[in-house]
Amino acid sequence: MREKNPIETLIDLMARLPGLGPRSARRAVLHLIRKRGALLAPLAEAMAQVAATARECLNCGNVSTGDVCPICADEARANGILCVVEDVADLWAMERAQVFRGRYHVLGGTLSALDGIGPDELRIPRLKDRLAAERVTEVILALNATIDGQTTAHYIADQLEGRVALSSLAQGVPIGGELDYLDDGTITAALNARKRF
Amino acid sequence: MREKNPIETLIDLMARLPGLGPRSARRAVLHLIRKRGALLAPLAEAMAQVAATARECLNCGNVSTGDVCPICADEARANGILCVVEDVADLWAMERAQVFRGRYHVLGGTLSALDGIGPDELRIPRLKDRLAAERVTEVILALNATIDGQTTAHYIADQLEGRVALSSLAQGVPIGGELDYLDDGTITAALNARKRF
Ligand SMILES: [Zn+2]
Ligand SMILES: [Zn+2]
Repeated sequence: MREKNPIETLIDLMARLPGLGPRSARRAVLHLIRKRGALLAPLAEAMAQVAATARECLNCGNVSTGDVCPICADEARANGILCVVEDVADLWAMERAQVFRGRYHVLGGTLSALDGIGPDELRIPRLKDRLAAERVTEVILALNATIDGQTTAHYIADQLEGRVALSSLAQGVPIGGELDYLDDGTITAALNARKRF
Repeated sequence: MREKNPIETLIDLMARLPGLGPRSARRAVLHLIRKRGALLAPLAEAMAQVAATARECLNCGNVSTGDVCPICADEARANGILCVVEDVADLWAMERAQVFRGRYHVLGGTLSALDGIGPDELRIPRLKDRLAAERVTEVILALNATIDGQTTAHYIADQLEGRVALSSLAQGVPIGGELDYLDDGTITAALNARKRF
């Protein structure tokens, strides 16, 4: 069999992105080749830079280009409030709403008996360590309003009971809804009306 | 304003791909960061390579990593039949069908009075040059069944009249197609071109 040329290799790799199938990958690659100066070359450069520098923040689990992410490095955000989210997409959704000024803790998923994911597979031990280290007074459980999300929220609430104030996002997050799908206004309203867990 | 970090830059560039909006770009970038060894680094490398090498085949307009594409370079495909298509995506679609063994000529669009696209904006002069140079005996006009595609096919047919045999793809019901989903024009064409059972 003949060797694949670089264009075919690029199409195959692009087709592995979420939301792109083979057909949209081909369209995207043709678009990139047409705009190879304005888009393809900068994209190659940005990808190489992210590949070389991206890692998980050692403190909170956010993606970062340094050992500690900009939010954890920002002393102005050490206000004693931690917002616990399932994944980085949720953190980004909270940040876009521009209403929360504390820090985050990214679990990296939810507890799931079915998938064999227990507390140690998530970033739960690290969450406990942070309570003292960062003088945390309130933990906001901003998990998705799904069964797994709420199970995880209850588990964490049990673990932290009596050590900090616990709250969760207000009703207003639709049943079965995921933070990353919500508009900024809904997130703002839910955060402002958060209630004690 | 603070400078954008490489991850934000990557999201912005990804959001400019056809079929990806800001949200799917964010999802794609998180996926890439999670798979930075298996997917992000190879993708960066493939993009850099395509950015450095991709160009238009000087002969047919196909995308290529050399001055002449593999199809034009393949002497076995010099069978005197040229298939004229609108763009490279159409050429790829024909190649996937693995049924055409001649060469292609990619116009780079269709004639459009509205958009000010005349014959010289397309690869039509070059098509005429190829007829003699490659001893072409048949030109298949494989343009899209749109008004602009068919206008362009008629224009080229007028230009080449008497110099080569001209043909176009048959119109009819697609394989697996249901009549109820087809537009009236397709049904009319299929009925007019009906053949004995
Ligand atoms: Zn962090
Ligand atoms: Zn060619």
